[in-house]
Amino acid sequence: MQRAIQRVGVVGASGYSGAELLRLLAAHPEMEVAAATSREFAGRRIADVYPNLAVYGDMVYSELEGTGLGDLDVAFLALPHGESMALGARMAEGGARVVDFSADFRLRDPDAYPEWFGAPHAAPEWLGKWVYGLPEIHRDEIRGAALVANPGCYPTAALLALAPLVAGRLIDPATIVISAASGVSGAGRSPGAALHFAHVEGNLRAYGVPTHKHTPEIEQELSRLAAGAAAPEGAGAGAQGVTVTFVPHLVPMARGLLATCIADLSGGAPADLAALARAFWDGEPFVRVVDGLPETKYATASNLCLLGYAVDRRARRAIAVAAIDNLGKGAAGQALQNANLMLGLPETTGLGGAGVYP
Amino acid sequence: MQRAIQRVGVVGASGYSGAELLRLLAAHPEMEVAAATSREFAGRRIADVYPNLAVYGDMVYSELEGTGLGDLDVAFLALPHGESMALGARMAEGGARVVDFSADFRLRDPDAYPEWFGAPHAAPEWLGKWVYGLPEIHRDEIRGAALVANPGCYPTAALLALAPLVAGRLIDPATIVISAASGVSGAGRSPGAALHFAHVEGNLRAYGVPTHKHTPEIEQELSRLAAGAAAPEGAGAGAQGVTVTFVPHLVPMARGLLATCIADLSGGAPADLAALARAFWDGEPFVRVVDGLPETKYATASNLCLLGYAVDRRARRAIAVAAIDNLGKGAAGQALQNANLMLGLPETTGLGGAGVYP
Amino acid sequence: MQRAIQRVGVVGASGYSGAELLRLLAAHPEMEVAAATSREFAGRRIADVYPNLAVYGDMVYSELEGTGLGDLDVAFLALPHGESMALGARMAEGGARVVDFSADFRLRDPDAYPEWFGAPHAAPEWLGKWVYGLPEIHRDEIRGAALVANPGCYPTAALLALAPLVAGRLIDPATIVISAASGVSGAGRSPGAALHFAHVEGNLRAYGVPTHKHTPEIEQELSRLAAGAAAPEGAGAGAQGVTVTFVPHLVPMARGLLATCIADLSGGAPADLAALARAFWDGEPFVRVVDGLPETKYATASNLCLLGYAVDRRARRAIAVAAIDNLGKGAAGQALQNANLMLGLPETTGLGGAGVYP
Amino acid sequence: MQRAIQRVGVVGASGYSGAELLRLLAAHPEMEVAAATSREFAGRRIADVYPNLAVYGDMVYSELEGTGLGDLDVAFLALPHGESMALGARMAEGGARVVDFSADFRLRDPDAYPEWFGAPHAAPEWLGKWVYGLPEIHRDEIRGAALVANPGCYPTAALLALAPLVAGRLIDPATIVISAASGVSGAGRSPGAALHFAHVEGNLRAYGVPTHKHTPEIEQELSRLAAGAAAPEGAGAGAQGVTVTFVPHLVPMARGLLATCIADLSGGAPADLAALARAFWDGEPFVRVVDGLPETKYATASNLCLLGYAVDRRARRAIAVAAIDNLGKGAAGQALQNANLMLGLPETTGLGGAGVYP
Repeated sequence: MQRAIQRVGVVGASGYSGAELLRLLAAHPEMEVAAATSREFAGRRIADVYPNLAVYGDMVYSELEGTGLGDLDVAFLALPHGESMALGARMAEGGARVVDFSADFRLRDPDAYPEWFGAPHAAPEWLGKWVYGLPEIHRDEIRGAALVANPGCYPTAALLALAPLVAGRLIDPATIVISAASGVSGAGRSPGAALHFAHVEGNLRAYGVPTHKHTPEIEQELSRLAAGAAAPEGAGAGAQGVTVTFVPHLVPMARGLLATCIADLSGGAPADLAALARAFWDGEPFVRVVDGLPETKYATASNLCLLGYAVDRRARRAIAVAAIDNLGKGAAGQALQNANLMLGLPETTGLGGAGVYP
Repeated sequence: MQRAIQRVGVVGASGYSGAELLRLLAAHPEMEVAAATSREFAGRRIADVYPNLAVYGDMVYSELEGTGLGDLDVAFLALPHGESMALGARMAEGGARVVDFSADFRLRDPDAYPEWFGAPHAAPEWLGKWVYGLPEIHRDEIRGAALVANPGCYPTAALLALAPLVAGRLIDPATIVISAASGVSGAGRSPGAALHFAHVEGNLRAYGVPTHKHTPEIEQELSRLAAGAAAPEGAGAGAQGVTVTFVPHLVPMARGLLATCIADLSGGAPADLAALARAFWDGEPFVRVVDGLPETKYATASNLCLLGYAVDRRARRAIAVAAIDNLGKGAAGQALQNANLMLGLPETTGLGGAGVYP
Repeated sequence: MQRAIQRVGVVGASGYSGAELLRLLAAHPEMEVAAATSREFAGRRIADVYPNLAVYGDMVYSELEGTGLGDLDVAFLALPHGESMALGARMAEGGARVVDFSADFRLRDPDAYPEWFGAPHAAPEWLGKWVYGLPEIHRDEIRGAALVANPGCYPTAALLALAPLVAGRLIDPATIVISAASGVSGAGRSPGAALHFAHVEGNLRAYGVPTHKHTPEIEQELSRLAAGAAAPEGAGAGAQGVTVTFVPHLVPMARGLLATCIADLSGGAPADLAALARAFWDGEPFVRVVDGLPETKYATASNLCLLGYAVDRRARRAIAVAAIDNLGKGAAGQALQNANLMLGLPETTGLGGAGVYP
Repeated sequence: MQRAIQRVGVVGASGYSGAELLRLLAAHPEMEVAAATSREFAGRRIADVYPNLAVYGDMVYSELEGTGLGDLDVAFLALPHGESMALGARMAEGGARVVDFSADFRLRDPDAYPEWFGAPHAAPEWLGKWVYGLPEIHRDEIRGAALVANPGCYPTAALLALAPLVAGRLIDPATIVISAASGVSGAGRSPGAALHFAHVEGNLRAYGVPTHKHTPEIEQELSRLAAGAAAPEGAGAGAQGVTVTFVPHLVPMARGLLATCIADLSGGAPADLAALARAFWDGEPFVRVVDGLPETKYATASNLCLLGYAVDRRARRAIAVAAIDNLGKGAAGQALQNANLMLGLPETTGLGGAGVYP
């Protein structure tokens, strides 16, 4: 019996992440795009707005209102932070299968949201009911889940780099410092003086220090990992939770994200962190521990996460570095990986594996 | 009856074009890579040299010598100009199916080769026996052909832009000027002072003026088009042939190629060159005439050629602009398109269609 | 007797050209900045808005209104096209010395303005009374002039490249095609989707074809040059005037402009266009004819114009290429060169000569 | 009495740092370049090798041998690490005034050199006799000194950012982590696969972890600062010395360097680190503490060091960020600042102060 093609929709399909998802879906053999909404471009052909998406032929962007999201097998919400809350809750109530790109449903602790986002959550009763969609850590929960909160780009990289060290108790979680950097597409498609090419070229800067909104989800997941497998699933970052210093930077490149994580080694310095990480992530289709240190370019336009490790023996610190494409494993690729799991499809379907280089 | 998977090989698979072809082949459902040679990296795992090609797992680069090219369904030669001549001729004699990336077999006029390349051809008897692999113009010859000379990146763009105008006698071929520009990957992977990032960033320059080696193939094909369908196949750019001025530039970007072609309008200025070109290329899966003018970025990592047209009524000139990815439609993508045709596969197999943006 | 320091003002000093002029003025030994206006940043310290201009200490941007422009030795108007018209005319009536960066007073033909700019000129009586400020061509008029219209960036490059060929009757002016490209700062500081870093990186495109507003001033000056020294000063591009096809492009770099000019050779192909141009521009402090072809990067942050020439003997065409910094010789540097001439200072004062590389 | 112009020479004047120094010297009113050596370009005109240095007219690069370095008022050695040792020692013996760009004479501890550089020092007796040329910390020693070791680019940035915190005992020196990133010119002018534009564009990576050769000079100077003013001058980083973890990155930009330094706060979190740093560096002509965090672009082509500070109250850590131009304050600019001090000239002579933006 042939499997039916899954009908999916992308809400916010003209932002960078949404358009990247359209690109991936065009090559997905088991999904078809039944709807793609865009406030800005509703009524215009996708292929005219994004000539790279010429394969969409005459299909047009639609308005969110009137688009039959309820009929979809999966809806992807690629909206800015804060805008998914109400829609996500409404769709959840309706029993829909949803992958949300925003930070709106990533935190489990209802108190954490207003603390970090400066406003109350519109549907706090739904916090804790969405699965945190990092398949390498929460695969079993994602399989068959209806509501998945797609992780942030920085957390994806940092967590995949740190998980082997924290779970293996190789570092002291209280000493974790994350210095990360992203390409400019991570800041979204809305123009602004700080994103003007002439300003960004040849420019490097830190930003959002020390209150970047990805911090609490990093801490939530590291706390879980630190607490070990025995910890109750619903526990947030409590008193014993991990607190990190997170310093993001903006780099003059369109795509790509590097997370450099540094922490004190606990106990004796291990011989080979890379080998340990390679064993920890053994079998993961999208995680690859390289020899030496990873470079973001090799992950471009892919769902790959490349990891590398070093030990500073003099200072007795571990250095863990992760490279991803912020729009790939950091957004649309991971969302598709989650959707594959939710629908019972092979996890790598439509995700190829090869990055674009050079 | 299920079709057998085609076994293909890539000679020179660690250069930019060869590695791009490996990337495309990894996603091709009807081909498998039986051999990938590299002088520099023989014996090393592809996935270690190019972590973006992690999907190649433990497959290693091989030496050309000893690699059984004769057993392949298709061999792709991604070697520098001049290095394909002997190997290509030897494989042709052996009856192999070959797509050659170099300029070695693109010219039909045996006299043109030494004039432009400054050295005699090693196998002049094979000139004229390879099909010029621009499917949009020579599709019927490519179908079933054994020997295909993959066009240069600049000629691909310029010819697709100009063909509708020359074939339609809308411009005076004697007045054609081509000002084109390529990303740096077009210069190949070998490092050099002129390709150092610090030199290229923020730098724009013309080069190779007025003797760039892509000029004769542009003239050969334009001459054919100008002479019309009745012209004998073997004719080169003779006395009546088209002579163009071609000025290539190097632009600070890794990929992408734009060809801006300018020529005097012949007779009355036509109302809408874009509409005429759209009709001319109707049905072509990889050619798209945009409204306005095309941008290279929308073709990145794809086999797309985006075209745009304008008329300078004051000066009575036509402006035709083509945007491609020099490694896609300008090299590896087009080679795969040719191989699909040679093997009787659907032409678009494994070529997706969506470009990577942003 | 010691010369008094010249008190100058910059109107629109927070745009890219205005801020570049502030940078140059900070090192000018004979000028001091008495006023710098900015609508957007009035009241804020220059050094806070532009930390690179830390040398301005506590000086703040002022509102145009209330700034005593009348007391200045020279006022520079670095306003967008259309916004200088009224102010420039008012200052001209008041007898001020003004260098205007906009296109508002560059054309001499009163009919040309509305044709190209789509709106009537606010002070057409002043057209023709401003000197076109290209010192290498109009030095004598600029010396002592009160009103100077600073040329556009593209015209500056194209005219310096073509002047030796047109004045020397080496090319047929009716066949001139200019394919030029600029860095993104040429589009101004206002953000927009088309200037977002993620859109511009790895992107090359033509724009403004075939009606770019720099076209008429190129034609005006080429017509004068073609008509020879005997032509009356006030004559615009009349029936015998030169008409060019001008195709500008946008390149992913912050600064830099390259103009590639192509035209049919008239009569016998000359032996060495570079040598002729070198003789033509002999003694010019900012024009340098290089061996081979120029690269924009070597002109960065300088007032240099680098020229290179080639002959396409097969097609019998000349290729003339100019490289400048669009904010240097293409805007602020040239404005300062003009002001030096207007004030009787040595022309190179404060203009150094060395570009920033790499 | 008029002061005589100082005759200076640049050894290695065709590398990026040496050429940048030539650019600066061209505008220095009290110095003239008497000699500029280059192994690669000896005999060629500087202005032909570097058209941006057109102001050098017909002056040619000379061979080191035969160049009368002994007659100079100051010699700048802009040679690769390891190549200054012998020449520097010989010139020191001859009583010359030398500013050395390399790491060869920066360390005071004779044991540290072979440990970090993997080879014995050729003239260990001279270690400790060169002043570490960071004027903001060692101004008095530099004034009148004959031998100055110009600091590395990373140490310059990190030390200026951290000095106020370490000297003020605001952080625990044992916890310092430095995550820094440099533009590609920092890797030098020699081409290589890792510096090819097509590889670097869109690429971010860490490198040299954890044994970058700038580490020991950072530790040497932080140790001094931590030990306080009473510490003996000759003391290296001993048992009580500061050990840091230093992770450098390579960013796709030509120039610019950002050092992000993170350390545990000691005692009560201070209200305003920026205000403290502003007071600490009060009067320094090239150090500017910005509001918020600094961006590298504003320091381009200048001798500026822009600093910014933040406090992570949750993790009780300080974040100190410095932005410089690696070729400016990180190399040639600082060398000139040192030479001004050595010669008794005003420290800012020829160093302008304005950076190039955008």
